Amino acid sequence: MHCDEFVADCRVRQLADLFAQTWNPVVLLALRPGPRRRRTLREEIGGISDKVLTDTLRRLQAQGLISRTAYAEAPPRVDYALTELGRSIVDGPLKALGAWVAEHGDELTAAPRP
Amino acid sequence: MHCDEFVADCRVRQLADLFAQTWNPVVLLALRPGPRRRRTLREEIGGISDKVLTDTLRRLQAQGLISRTAYAEAPPRVDYALTELGRSIVDGPLKALGAWVAEHGDELTAAPRP
Repeated sequence: MHCDEFVADCRVRQLADLFAQTWNPVVLLALRPGPRRRRTLREEIGGISDKVLTDTLRRLQAQGLISRTAYAEAPPRVDYALTELGRSIVDGPLKALGAWVAEHGDELTAAPRP
Repeated sequence: MHCDEFVADCRVRQLADLFAQTWNPVVLLALRPGPRRRRTLREEIGGISDKVLTDTLRRLQAQGLISRTAYAEAPPRVDYALTELGRSIVDGPLKALGAWVAEHGDELTAAPRP
């Protein structure tokens, strides 16, 4: 990827990529109220396949945005939660994107894909 | 593209896509100070080919984010400028993304592409 000094925003794009991937922002937002079990996430999100949810959770975990905690209970319980970093994304840029879309989304002309 | 009521953010992704495309945020930021001629843009941005700049300007124009104004001067002059909508993106979500990256960018783990 081309990195240019002028903008120093390779990471802006990295962050934008994160939101551009269909399910990432959805899962991040779904975790906003607090830790969730996998099944609860699936129910609350709706329309997400088991495989896609698994992939998304792994990806967000690999990026340090969510944590996975296994509790030694019977039956075993696994919780997913936003990390501090994940919360900073949800409360910062993701919120700003959402606010913009709520106000101006209709004005954005659908552009042809390059 | 799957649109889900839960997040109502197909447009969040549309907006994220906009930032994720390499040169879009660069050109938007370059127009922040005010209208620019094409040649000035190229010089100020640096490292952008003529073709890519042309494509990016057309794309942003098609999305209603920048305007193109031709002045009947000799030699003819053409200016590009942020529209009101374009400015709202630069001052809103793009700024929020930049601020987050400045503060937390180093913490974002590079995740493998899916």
